[in-house]
Amino acid sequence: MSSTYGERFRLTIFGQSHAPAIGVTMEGLPAGVPVDLDRLQQFLDRRAPGQSRITTSRKEPDAPEFVSGLVEGRTCGAPVTAIIRNTNTRSGDYANLRDCPRPGHADYPAQVKYGGYQDVAGGGHFSGRLTAPLCIAGGIALQLLEKLGITVAAHIQSIGPVDDGRFDLAGVDAAQLQALLRKPFPVLRDEAGDEMKAAILAAKSDLDSLGGVIECAAVGVPAGWGDPMFGGMENRIAQMVFGIPAIRGIEFGLGFPAARLTGSRHNDAYYMDGDTVKTRTNHHGGILGGITTGMPVVFRAAVKPTASIARRQESVSLSEQRDAPLEIHGRHDPCIVPRAVPVVEAAMAIALLDAYFCAGTNTTPDAPWL
Amino acid sequence: MSSTYGERFRLTIFGQSHAPAIGVTMEGLPAGVPVDLDRLQQFLDRRAPGQSRITTSRKEPDAPEFVSGLVEGRTCGAPVTAIIRNTNTRSGDYANLRDCPRPGHADYPAQVKYGGYQDVAGGGHFSGRLTAPLCIAGGIALQLLEKLGITVAAHIQSIGPVDDGRFDLAGVDAAQLQALLRKPFPVLRDEAGDEMKAAILAAKSDLDSLGGVIECAAVGVPAGWGDPMFGGMENRIAQMVFGIPAIRGIEFGLGFPAARLTGSRHNDAYYMDGDTVKTRTNHHGGILGGITTGMPVVFRAAVKPTASIARRQESVSLSEQRDAPLEIHGRHDPCIVPRAVPVVEAAMAIALLDAYFCAGTNTTPDAPWL
Amino acid sequence: MSSTYGERFRLTIFGQSHAPAIGVTMEGLPAGVPVDLDRLQQFLDRRAPGQSRITTSRKEPDAPEFVSGLVEGRTCGAPVTAIIRNTNTRSGDYANLRDCPRPGHADYPAQVKYGGYQDVAGGGHFSGRLTAPLCIAGGIALQLLEKLGITVAAHIQSIGPVDDGRFDLAGVDAAQLQALLRKPFPVLRDEAGDEMKAAILAAKSDLDSLGGVIECAAVGVPAGWGDPMFGGMENRIAQMVFGIPAIRGIEFGLGFPAARLTGSRHNDAYYMDGDTVKTRTNHHGGILGGITTGMPVVFRAAVKPTASIARRQESVSLSEQRDAPLEIHGRHDPCIVPRAVPVVEAAMAIALLDAYFCAGTNTTPDAPWL
Amino acid sequence: MSSTYGERFRLTIFGQSHAPAIGVTMEGLPAGVPVDLDRLQQFLDRRAPGQSRITTSRKEPDAPEFVSGLVEGRTCGAPVTAIIRNTNTRSGDYANLRDCPRPGHADYPAQVKYGGYQDVAGGGHFSGRLTAPLCIAGGIALQLLEKLGITVAAHIQSIGPVDDGRFDLAGVDAAQLQALLRKPFPVLRDEAGDEMKAAILAAKSDLDSLGGVIECAAVGVPAGWGDPMFGGMENRIAQMVFGIPAIRGIEFGLGFPAARLTGSRHNDAYYMDGDTVKTRTNHHGGILGGITTGMPVVFRAAVKPTASIARRQESVSLSEQRDAPLEIHGRHDPCIVPRAVPVVEAAMAIALLDAYFCAGTNTTPDAPWL
Repeated sequence: MSSTYGERFRLTIFGQSHAPAIGVTMEGLPAGVPVDLDRLQQFLDRRAPGQSRITTSRKEPDAPEFVSGLVEGRTCGAPVTAIIRNTNTRSGDYANLRDCPRPGHADYPAQVKYGGYQDVAGGGHFSGRLTAPLCIAGGIALQLLEKLGITVAAHIQSIGPVDDGRFDLAGVDAAQLQALLRKPFPVLRDEAGDEMKAAILAAKSDLDSLGGVIECAAVGVPAGWGDPMFGGMENRIAQMVFGIPAIRGIEFGLGFPAARLTGSRHNDAYYMDGDTVKTRTNHHGGILGGITTGMPVVFRAAVKPTASIARRQESVSLSEQRDAPLEIHGRHDPCIVPRAVPVVEAAMAIALLDAYFCAGTNTTPDAPWL
Repeated sequence: MSSTYGERFRLTIFGQSHAPAIGVTMEGLPAGVPVDLDRLQQFLDRRAPGQSRITTSRKEPDAPEFVSGLVEGRTCGAPVTAIIRNTNTRSGDYANLRDCPRPGHADYPAQVKYGGYQDVAGGGHFSGRLTAPLCIAGGIALQLLEKLGITVAAHIQSIGPVDDGRFDLAGVDAAQLQALLRKPFPVLRDEAGDEMKAAILAAKSDLDSLGGVIECAAVGVPAGWGDPMFGGMENRIAQMVFGIPAIRGIEFGLGFPAARLTGSRHNDAYYMDGDTVKTRTNHHGGILGGITTGMPVVFRAAVKPTASIARRQESVSLSEQRDAPLEIHGRHDPCIVPRAVPVVEAAMAIALLDAYFCAGTNTTPDAPWL
Repeated sequence: MSSTYGERFRLTIFGQSHAPAIGVTMEGLPAGVPVDLDRLQQFLDRRAPGQSRITTSRKEPDAPEFVSGLVEGRTCGAPVTAIIRNTNTRSGDYANLRDCPRPGHADYPAQVKYGGYQDVAGGGHFSGRLTAPLCIAGGIALQLLEKLGITVAAHIQSIGPVDDGRFDLAGVDAAQLQALLRKPFPVLRDEAGDEMKAAILAAKSDLDSLGGVIECAAVGVPAGWGDPMFGGMENRIAQMVFGIPAIRGIEFGLGFPAARLTGSRHNDAYYMDGDTVKTRTNHHGGILGGITTGMPVVFRAAVKPTASIARRQESVSLSEQRDAPLEIHGRHDPCIVPRAVPVVEAAMAIALLDAYFCAGTNTTPDAPWL
Repeated sequence: MSSTYGERFRLTIFGQSHAPAIGVTMEGLPAGVPVDLDRLQQFLDRRAPGQSRITTSRKEPDAPEFVSGLVEGRTCGAPVTAIIRNTNTRSGDYANLRDCPRPGHADYPAQVKYGGYQDVAGGGHFSGRLTAPLCIAGGIALQLLEKLGITVAAHIQSIGPVDDGRFDLAGVDAAQLQALLRKPFPVLRDEAGDEMKAAILAAKSDLDSLGGVIECAAVGVPAGWGDPMFGGMENRIAQMVFGIPAIRGIEFGLGFPAARLTGSRHNDAYYMDGDTVKTRTNHHGGILGGITTGMPVVFRAAVKPTASIARRQESVSLSEQRDAPLEIHGRHDPCIVPRAVPVVEAAMAIALLDAYFCAGTNTTPDAPWL
């Protein structure tokens, strides 16, 4: 189904931008998991809008209410549902969109698919606002992963032409990731961050928008998670990450540049680090044959420039079957990349946690049949 | 589950490189679908090894036997299972791999995951040979899509440093794709193809290997296929494509370069072409909000260089927990990109057909409740 | 997953008896489906407690709030989530149950499964109260099925020793079912209903409880729904019906008595009724090989007597590992059968609607490949 | 999908009665599981036809070939596919069935569903022959369950009017079940078995057929398997058991008779047996709230009389839309109940094993978050 993800940690995201609420229903969390609601709120706040001049002026607290599944701060084994009320809605802004689709948005294909019955207000179920419940699930997943010794963090690798550089694939570690998590604008080089913010403000004043690339890493993931073929970690992460609006590509490890190397340069040599098997380089991004190797799991996701721009654009009138210009009003981020960083971390965490739960039936030393 | 894909056209791929057989079990094909076995065989032959100096010398006919689901050349509504016998196996080549994992292969993580019980011969279930049953399913899917007016074809965009250029995203059409399908070495510019072949042979004589990028397009896909969030066409295609060994990245439409454009340049303007809604450019690659727009669906997949190279490499002895050099023998492709082209087409076709079947419950003009 | 049902009409039921809310998240409803909320409320009211002396005194309005998926009274194609606030909770009644499990309830196995972290208040996620969101989904399904010409209704076949008789399997029709739906106490013979009510009140005054059998029929279901093997209509209905607490058995058509007949007496002879194929008897209950035949679909479900009784019972102290008597306080139905009637109808409707959506990919006269 | 079952131990059954082969593809078996092929063959032989005068004269060895997933007698973590060649086919016997459907068979609804493209020979995918691959999966599941200390066996509770009595629900133990497994005609009282055989032969000579009831028990199942609502053990077992052709009903524990008891008599009192929680009676059949309690899991399944009888029956000509008599030729069991006994055991075993694998993500004492 369209808005459901996962095998053993399964979540369904519901809601539309201007519905009474958005939210998530989660199944598969073991009973007894403590959920630290304060830390979850801090995580959600990283995604929330209205924090600075480079984000949309729509302000909503994004405070989830857990209506089921938690008892005295712990999961009880039943499905966990959390909702976030939509309070700051201005649906009048969107009245024209059923007839005149916005370039770069889902308006037109949704019109065809749903025969005109889709919720057009604010992009409906396609709105970036739906990444808030994704972050509820992801924030909980991050809390569990932390207890397994796993740290997940992402940085803004580029915005428009400004480049922050990449992680050292083999060398990225928990300390570096935790430092990133403390930054309000997570980049490896703060000067790059300043240039990025300047570029966003320039685009905004130009009634335009920018995209970028987010690089995400998880360290501490043990070897052996993931499955061959369609259940590989790349498949799982990619299926999740493309659920974030505006993502146009994903690459693991060295990614597309791997296609230009020779095998002798691309292959990652094994060595023993004490009793741990490691690779000297990490072009493989911590995944081989779909299964984690114990090296850092690293991927990059390309985010297209925000489709909503205040400039006049070419569109059509679907009812009159003629070309028609369009001007979009409303409140929009000139660049969603900064707010997408925790969403990408949430995506990584959800995919990892599900893979962890799936790995439970594999052979173990004490399996009664061995 | 790991080796299963799809919601309404569901397939499970089974087999190991040196097991008695490999094959596929498919569910969800409607009854009455004619399967042209001759054309299917021609499609499988495009993937088969042993065709020229640039592929492995392992020769196997890859002739599927349909043991269930077909009656007099048509599907009967029951699951369709086809098997390919493994005849040309040389399992002695692989005895050492349980202890000394090959760089770039799944040997090590599989050893951890399966506790040493995995089938190591020829890569077992991780072998590229498993793309043969994928092509059985894909070849059937292509036959159905053809009847829906859809053409799917891919070309080799690059091998190592040699670049063939990209499709004209908005202009690619069925005629261009059909011309590609007739080429034994599918490139847009044949001179690029000659350079690629030379590069492959040079790598081979250098005991090395090359990777590349494959670009795949589908034209004729109507608007309205795919679902929001995790059921989007990108999610579906990516989950399938990463099931092909050696894929390291995927991008849709303009892909990663989209991250460097401004919104005003990236957004695809709508216009009416007669009574059809089209976009002047196709940076979105035929998909918005996860749903097809009617424009060509285009993606690119990065293939890493073949991990099996004849050079001495650094590895470890897992039993002795020490570094140990490794030399790989056996027969391997110096570059799998040419043989991966039909596999990528198969992947696109399977994802499209499943999405088509899934689109069946959406609103239609004659739904009794409208 | 435990609380999720369905392939194409998929619902997840969440909530616990004394959580902030209970509810349901539904996927797969086509866009544009009108939902008549007044009729839905009437349907829910049939299940609601507190209506008479034969039900529990816990009174709650069971008024659903649709927080997503509906726009101006119609589905919009996005997941539909409805919640019912729990207002009348008295969790103090249940404090002892973590240590001293109630006979006939899930307390003990839940304690083992969830390690003591389950929500014990009011039975938590195991409470019969969770049938309210099931009825939300079922009530919507019934509205769609009605537009497809299908009528679903159930009657109380027996309560304790009082028997109402069975449907005429081949003769039951829409008029008879609609008459049942108008009855506050749905029985075929009203005098049997009076006896049943008297038996319930007698059990109540005896601090005891009663069970019964519910027989449910659907007429107007066309031939061809359902799938062979594990996707058969019996499999689908049974998987749903056993999701209702207290169900101990299900049988289709003639059911268990079929095991005592000879084939010549059990087989249902075919005949033509105009241009419609019918069977003279309907021992098969409208399903052969898992697929509907066009005859009425009929099943019976056995409901055990309410496990909560006010009498002193034998139990154990789990913490002290010794036998311990138990007295249950709280408000309980002496017989849940009357309130379970709409729940069983909801179950039938959900299973049918899902099968209808699944049937969409089968061969049709205008399939392009035929 | 129709012929797929299971969440974590997932199997797809393929093949038709007269296709080249029938078989099963299984996913989710951990790596390293030894499969004793001799014992598996012995289990399959219990189901095989042609053993005596009371079964069909179609003789086939039912010898599975494992084409994938096994290496040196153990699972390797990849999907396991086994096929059984159909050798003794006589498809000419069934030519007429596309037009003139057999009463009690799936011919007519399959004709509607598949538009005439279904495989009619021998019942195609609906044939009882498809229970052979079910027994392959079930036989392997039984071998794993045995290592977990679980014994599964069924007896023929009744055939036609002859009754063998029921298990002592609370008292049935492994020794009693193992004794049953050694009997060629598994009944509690051998004199009942003799009467049953006589009844079958009488029905056969009368050109008629008989049905019956099979009662199945599993002992040694620990408390805590299964999930609430739709993932309960009853739901799981019922969804599997209705995949066996001819099953018309299923009941757990006391079953339908529970509907006639009062709560005070039906509730099973808890007591401590050493440090084990047990119930004095076992009306609940080892399952409460969908979760196992540690008491024997017991269900009963009703098998209708064989639909294929040699007598002239009433049917219709679908092409001519008129009533038409029908005489069925071919080889059929006058009563399938004896051969269905191992199939029912296989069904129980598959459902249990899948539930066991699903239970893996629940809370455990050493979970890092507790």
